Amino acid sequence: MSNSEGLELATKATPENDMERGTPAVATGETEVGVGSVLRRWKRDDFIRKGSLALRAFGLLFSILSFIIMASNNHGDNRNFGDFEEYRYLLGIAILSTLYTGFQCFKYVHQLSSGKEFVSMKTSALIDFVGDQIMAYLLLSSASSAIPITNRMREGGDNIFTDSAAAAISMSLLAFISLGCSSVIAGYKLSTQSFV
Amino acid sequence: MSNSEGLELATKATPENDMERGTPAVATGETEVGVGSVLRRWKRDDFIRKGSLALRAFGLLFSILSFIIMASNNHGDNRNFGDFEEYRYLLGIAILSTLYTGFQCFKYVHQLSSGKEFVSMKTSALIDFVGDQIMAYLLLSSASSAIPITNRMREGGDNIFTDSAAAAISMSLLAFISLGCSSVIAGYKLSTQSFV
Repeated sequence: MSNSEGLELATKATPENDMERGTPAVATGETEVGVGSVLRRWKRDDFIRKGSLALRAFGLLFSILSFIIMASNNHGDNRNFGDFEEYRYLLGIAILSTLYTGFQCFKYVHQLSSGKEFVSMKTSALIDFVGDQIMAYLLLSSASSAIPITNRMREGGDNIFTDSAAAAISMSLLAFISLGCSSVIAGYKLSTQSFV
Repeated sequence: MSNSEGLELATKATPENDMERGTPAVATGETEVGVGSVLRRWKRDDFIRKGSLALRAFGLLFSILSFIIMASNNHGDNRNFGDFEEYRYLLGIAILSTLYTGFQCFKYVHQLSSGKEFVSMKTSALIDFVGDQIMAYLLLSSASSAIPITNRMREGGDNIFTDSAAAAISMSLLAFISLGCSSVIAGYKLSTQSFV
């Protein structure tokens, strides 16, 4: 049932004599409580769905940025990202995060346009939560491992290599924040499923 | 109501004529469903409570080990943990994690012995989830940041300094795993509270 249909039904359910008494906005007693709680539930579900998508879209954006900035960070003379294992790790996780968040966004759009789902709701909720949580941990881990060496190199003076590395690290941290928040929402969705 | 009391009540609620017919184990119809689901719920709650405490106790153990191993890692000749910012970070987070998990274990024991709570259930569930999640992130971050420099130092050959550092990192990672699992349980508890 779509939201607008449900709203119509809910409106029909209010006692019609209220309208005649000239107080259409104030429904009384049980009906008000029922309609109110249903509307609150819809609003919350809608907010969760949109919030979840927005957070993953931000995650995708920041992951792509981190990936591009780090992958193009080659300036010769021992200033290539490939010379440092921390930067290779950061790049690898950024690519993984790009693929994961891209798949999640695609899944949402596909579901919205075709109305069909790849997997059942329950499996989907589980995959979402586990995926978000693990990607958040990986992004934080990669950013944390790359920070000390960048810090140490910048003590000797900034250059385009260290600046690019710092930018890529920041983008990974922002992607981590997005996916960390998204995992909280996914955990809430998973817990409120009826099977647990 | 304690579990044993509840079990007694549940046993009383099964129809007594089943006993007379000589089939005491098989209750029929609605009663069976009701008792079964209540028992399952109790078992789950009990499991969650014990699992949560066990995970935090493990977190406390590993945090203390990490803290002690790193804090005693002073061997002179540029082989002191204080010379490396990664190790100072690891030590700081290990101390923080020790305090946090110690407080959580103390809270549980206090609640069990006196029956009183410091804060209301709702606030407690929120603090548990946020605390566990943030501590898990911090522990992972500190372990990740300390790994590359230890790895690089061990390329030149192992010694007691790098071995102690590796041991402290492993303990921090184990504490992270404990608190990561604990945060999932805390998130489940928080979501199934009636106020969300």
